[in-house]
Amino acid sequence: MKIGFIGLGIMGKPMAKNLLKAGYNVVCYSRTKKDIDDVVAAGAEAGTSSADVASQVDLVITMLPNSPEVKSVVLGEGGILEGAREGLIIIDMSSIAPLASQEIAAACALKGVRLLDAPVSGGEPKAIDASLAIMVGGDLDLFEEVKDILLVMGGSAVHCGPIGAGNTTKLANQIIVALNIAAVAEAFTLVRKAGVDPSLVFDAIKGGLAGSTVMNAKAPMMMDSNYKPGFKVDLHIKDLANALDTGHQVGSPLPLTALAREMMETLHADGYGGDDHSALARYYAKVSGTKIGEE
Amino acid sequence: MKIGFIGLGIMGKPMAKNLLKAGYNVVCYSRTKKDIDDVVAAGAEAGTSSADVASQVDLVITMLPNSPEVKSVVLGEGGILEGAREGLIIIDMSSIAPLASQEIAAACALKGVRLLDAPVSGGEPKAIDASLAIMVGGDLDLFEEVKDILLVMGGSAVHCGPIGAGNTTKLANQIIVALNIAAVAEAFTLVRKAGVDPSLVFDAIKGGLAGSTVMNAKAPMMMDSNYKPGFKVDLHIKDLANALDTGHQVGSPLPLTALAREMMETLHADGYGGDDHSALARYYAKVSGTKIGEE
Repeated sequence: MKIGFIGLGIMGKPMAKNLLKAGYNVVCYSRTKKDIDDVVAAGAEAGTSSADVASQVDLVITMLPNSPEVKSVVLGEGGILEGAREGLIIIDMSSIAPLASQEIAAACALKGVRLLDAPVSGGEPKAIDASLAIMVGGDLDLFEEVKDILLVMGGSAVHCGPIGAGNTTKLANQIIVALNIAAVAEAFTLVRKAGVDPSLVFDAIKGGLAGSTVMNAKAPMMMDSNYKPGFKVDLHIKDLANALDTGHQVGSPLPLTALAREMMETLHADGYGGDDHSALARYYAKVSGTKIGEE
Repeated sequence: MKIGFIGLGIMGKPMAKNLLKAGYNVVCYSRTKKDIDDVVAAGAEAGTSSADVASQVDLVITMLPNSPEVKSVVLGEGGILEGAREGLIIIDMSSIAPLASQEIAAACALKGVRLLDAPVSGGEPKAIDASLAIMVGGDLDLFEEVKDILLVMGGSAVHCGPIGAGNTTKLANQIIVALNIAAVAEAFTLVRKAGVDPSLVFDAIKGGLAGSTVMNAKAPMMMDSNYKPGFKVDLHIKDLANALDTGHQVGSPLPLTALAREMMETLHADGYGGDDHSALARYYAKVSGTKIGEE
């Protein structure tokens, strides 16, 4: 079976390579020639445009930065729909706004093209070792039809509801992760300013109700002032912005998310957008007058 | 050995009874005669005042609502210091402001009385079955001296640093718990308003970076609209107010905590102060126009 793959960035490239390793033929396309060459060297064919890729296959996977890029690649000039035959399946694995997924799916349906939204969590390391968590929205039968292909790229693939539900789930995940990180950063900054060793507090509370995967993963990074990504602040800003837009559209105010987003915008403005999102501790260092390296 | 126990509320009463069960003699005092009678029926002696209790023992445990009550019981008229001999040990197991612990300890030291702050987490069920998590601040040797007595009431007792460090640790715990609850409530409200089943989202994300003890414990309560405490909103407001006061005093702004506290104040004003703190979901139901029972 030949699979189209469009978008060969940090995530898309290892995902496409995992499809090749699993024995699938892949025809790929990306804006960046060098990325195409890299995946071709691993055994893929090169398409000349998104439309060209779509014309050669029954299934196209997209892995793109955000909603506008997915709209352009699917619906735009030289895009997937231009080359698609009726019955084509698109799996959009980008993390985008759920309402954008719904709009794109509706436009696809007019041409007999079916779409699933299937964003992932786990980042580059899990893209490389094919252990991504994949959250899927769309028709359940279609999900079952492509599940084996998803599991070539991920460790799990969960159907979360109708089209957009994958991205809604991803946004919920990103809200909770951002706020759990901020909670640890806010609490540990207080602890430090109050003259108490954060590592003792960490040991005292991690086993109780305050315990979280975020605390276990990020508190040690904060205590070491090590903000090597991991998941970058700038990408988390994108997700929180999509969450806030979605909240406004469906009538669900997100006051804590709005505040966490502004904290991350502060980091971005300070030049730390490329840091791991645990760098929220830098925000608290800044507002509490703590010297850099002591946060 | 005879131990003084002052403050026989929901927490203090089962803690005093556990000391009795372990074979300690207990002399107790509380503002409420009925509570004294109850603990006396379990084998304790009754003191006539805090000073009277202190005059009979080498170790007094206090379990009181907040900083002002502890100041009054230790330093006030008819209080512990009035009856204390030099060398008396006070273990204050109340959850109060760390700076209050430091002030009280300093006043005690002038009379040769030593104090540990040793707040607990776990609530009434863990007070009853003696599995409280006890966070201790103060002299390390003194902590080691009384650790066995603490472990009659708790499942763990961790030394967190100098006097006040127990309460600082408790505040960090309460900040993180409040914000992790609010994070789940905020994200799950968005999910519901976006037309996605929260239980599918819960299953999809609980195993990843968003996972937390709070999510596992509280998301099911929110999905069932079951807010039976557990830990009451009004008590959490007290802890967050102490955290904010402490933050202001040590120069550590707590913007997310301030917002979560205002959300809890909204619940209090709406008559939900006696609900479990997972009722933060009610706040989001309110601001998103969701009908009660659907939150």
